[in-house]
Amino acid sequence: MLIHDVRNSLVDVDVADLNQLKSNLNHSQPVDVGEYIAQLPKKQRAIAFRLLNKSQAIDVFEYLPLDVQEELINSLHDVQVAQIVEAMSPDERAELFDELPAKVIKRLLQELSPEERQATATILGYPEGTAGRLMTTEYVRLRQGLTVGEALSKIRRQDEDKETIYYAYVTDDNRTLVSVVSLRQLLFTFPDVYIREISSDRVVKVRTETPQEEVAQVMKRYDLIAIPVVDREQRLVGIVTIDDVIDILEEEATEDFQKLAGASGDEAAFSSPLVTIGKRLPWLLGIMLLYIGASSAIAPFQSTISMVPVLAVIMPLFSNTGGTVGIQALTVTIRSLGVGEVTPKDTLKILRKELLAGLGTALALATTMMLLSLIWARPQERWVALIAGMVMASNTIVAVALGTLLPMALKRLKLDPALISGPLVTTMLDTIGFLTFLSLISVALNVFHLPK
Amino acid sequence: MLIHDVRNSLVDVDVADLNQLKSNLNHSQPVDVGEYIAQLPKKQRAIAFRLLNKSQAIDVFEYLPLDVQEELINSLHDVQVAQIVEAMSPDERAELFDELPAKVIKRLLQELSPEERQATATILGYPEGTAGRLMTTEYVRLRQGLTVGEALSKIRRQDEDKETIYYAYVTDDNRTLVSVVSLRQLLFTFPDVYIREISSDRVVKVRTETPQEEVAQVMKRYDLIAIPVVDREQRLVGIVTIDDVIDILEEEATEDFQKLAGASGDEAAFSSPLVTIGKRLPWLLGIMLLYIGASSAIAPFQSTISMVPVLAVIMPLFSNTGGTVGIQALTVTIRSLGVGEVTPKDTLKILRKELLAGLGTALALATTMMLLSLIWARPQERWVALIAGMVMASNTIVAVALGTLLPMALKRLKLDPALISGPLVTTMLDTIGFLTFLSLISVALNVFHLPK
Repeated sequence: MLIHDVRNSLVDVDVADLNQLKSNLNHSQPVDVGEYIAQLPKKQRAIAFRLLNKSQAIDVFEYLPLDVQEELINSLHDVQVAQIVEAMSPDERAELFDELPAKVIKRLLQELSPEERQATATILGYPEGTAGRLMTTEYVRLRQGLTVGEALSKIRRQDEDKETIYYAYVTDDNRTLVSVVSLRQLLFTFPDVYIREISSDRVVKVRTETPQEEVAQVMKRYDLIAIPVVDREQRLVGIVTIDDVIDILEEEATEDFQKLAGASGDEAAFSSPLVTIGKRLPWLLGIMLLYIGASSAIAPFQSTISMVPVLAVIMPLFSNTGGTVGIQALTVTIRSLGVGEVTPKDTLKILRKELLAGLGTALALATTMMLLSLIWARPQERWVALIAGMVMASNTIVAVALGTLLPMALKRLKLDPALISGPLVTTMLDTIGFLTFLSLISVALNVFHLPK
Repeated sequence: MLIHDVRNSLVDVDVADLNQLKSNLNHSQPVDVGEYIAQLPKKQRAIAFRLLNKSQAIDVFEYLPLDVQEELINSLHDVQVAQIVEAMSPDERAELFDELPAKVIKRLLQELSPEERQATATILGYPEGTAGRLMTTEYVRLRQGLTVGEALSKIRRQDEDKETIYYAYVTDDNRTLVSVVSLRQLLFTFPDVYIREISSDRVVKVRTETPQEEVAQVMKRYDLIAIPVVDREQRLVGIVTIDDVIDILEEEATEDFQKLAGASGDEAAFSSPLVTIGKRLPWLLGIMLLYIGASSAIAPFQSTISMVPVLAVIMPLFSNTGGTVGIQALTVTIRSLGVGEVTPKDTLKILRKELLAGLGTALALATTMMLLSLIWARPQERWVALIAGMVMASNTIVAVALGTLLPMALKRLKLDPALISGPLVTTMLDTIGFLTFLSLISVALNVFHLPK
């Protein structure tokens, strides 16, 4: 069945036909069932969830949004809750516990088996956004000195709930990570070979305190489906799996994306109107505030504008193009920093390239600007075209330089390059463009006594 | 070794010390070696590549940029080229062949084994950007009716170069895909159980013609590390693996990101200045062109502006805030369409939420606008504040509506929602804002004979 069929088969069922619904819910993909339950009216969620058999309930639960998980914890029987929470992977469980009241956590922790309790405590001990918080403690660990045959039978005796059995991590007596071996290698090797002969000591690993974005970048770079996490003493404490990493890569991209537009990174399409206002309005009021500063700088030139009316027609072009040039360079820089394609070390290289490209762009834009000004200007105003062209060229170069250097500088200061949002750069460039242009025009009017 | 150490160990080596370099190159991660070789001066690349032993050479080759691959194909011995191209996975090989001259392809195809030649031809037969082009034909296929023990020994007899052995796909006599079984399930089941008893017929799959973005979204949704690809007759023809999909998700995000800023999606930080100009200048000239249209609509109002000088101070605020409001809504909509969080079906729901949020924003911005206008205006111009506030409110609502509806409409028309770039929306909103404002001001001046 293609997914669309699966989703439709859930939606099409008459909710009254409980048997049919039960069968569909237990034979669909957990993620689809989770989505279906999450969109039901509040009262029906627990009913639908109770229709799931035990293993499906456990799988579906991990796909529910945190608030629905919390709601179910409060409305299901304690025994069922205990079973589900016990079966969750430790990283998902830690994420849920973050949201629950302390009283509920205490109760749930008591009902967990000692190992699961320990695993949860370990993960909750690391700060949010680090490898330690993201990892699971359910991985396969082998001791040095085993043969391939022994390793395979050890893997077969593991709990079935290891997050991945496709890599096994080899440690010494101090739990220090020494090498990694894939299940593929084990299967393709004779049983009496020692694993040390086939395992690789070129282990790519991260530390518990490694930021989650870096974990994602490293796994992407080395095409890994799981990566080991070690503590300061190089002891193996967990692994991070690829499914969590894909979500992080997408979240990071969304965040950069939306910050650049002056919307907040964590706003979603279905955020409530109030949240949306709260995330966006500060940027808008900030822009207005900036403009008050800019306008007071521009205000003294009001008489200049009324003396040379063509200026009012020309000036918006500076703000439209200058802002866009700046945002183009800004976006390419922020994105390539985000995907790890460049680092602040490349600043000079990127700047040189951007300036070269900017020079070409500046020539083209300045020429167009001059032609347009000549067309729009009254005969006695035609000298304005020369200044307009010059300012267009210089504004383009400034825009390219700012768009490249600002995010690079933030990154070098270990700040988020996406803090520089588009509207900020646009407003800066507007002001710079207007002031340069109007100053030069007044100088020309006053010093050279040019015709008005 | 942490990756930074690995990379440094490559860079720190004195290139003259060939033995040390050879050892480092053969003991580092293929992706690091690939990056190192790609940044060497052209003449040294082939030399460094020849230092690799056969298996490392094969691994490293797939990580080299296409132009370096092409260069090496021309400078290495035919035997070595044949070995490498034979060992490449069929999807990577197809990507390389796309870049090579027909003559070279013909020669290379002749040197391939019959199966690899067939696999390459199959993949090259599907259009770029589809699952068929992205898939590999190296997967594990099992016939129905095998036991777990037979399945496991069949898997162990496979070539070691299958892209993944962690899922096996079960087909009937017509090669129709019937179910999927994971290696994990096989290992945890007794050997005499029939695989049909443990394999899952809830197979999530895609068609050869499924667009690559959809493949990526489906794999992300179902947390798959590989997905089967079937043809129109539901016959299994290949699989797509997670590593390709991560690259696609990132590329798609970059594309949306950069298009929104009026830079082209496929521009990279290190694109040459000429490419950069080519990608960005058309947008800039387009904006200027749009402005010519806008300005000719605004030009008749020049006398109005010179009669009420405060207008020149107020008007830029419309363009700064209106554009930003539009881009905020646009970005959130494009991004949530991009990650599959919303579909055009949700248009009304999203629009209602955006309009509610827009209403709140409009009130706040209109109030600020009125206050600022009152401060800036000469006493006889104060009536302008009322119109400025009204237009700011209406412009905000229009901006929110356009930012939401334009990408949704494009998506519904099966076009890329990111075609609506930020500068386009900004310029539209500028023009709408200016025209509404100036028209109302002239009406007020003429009809009510308000003071100037």
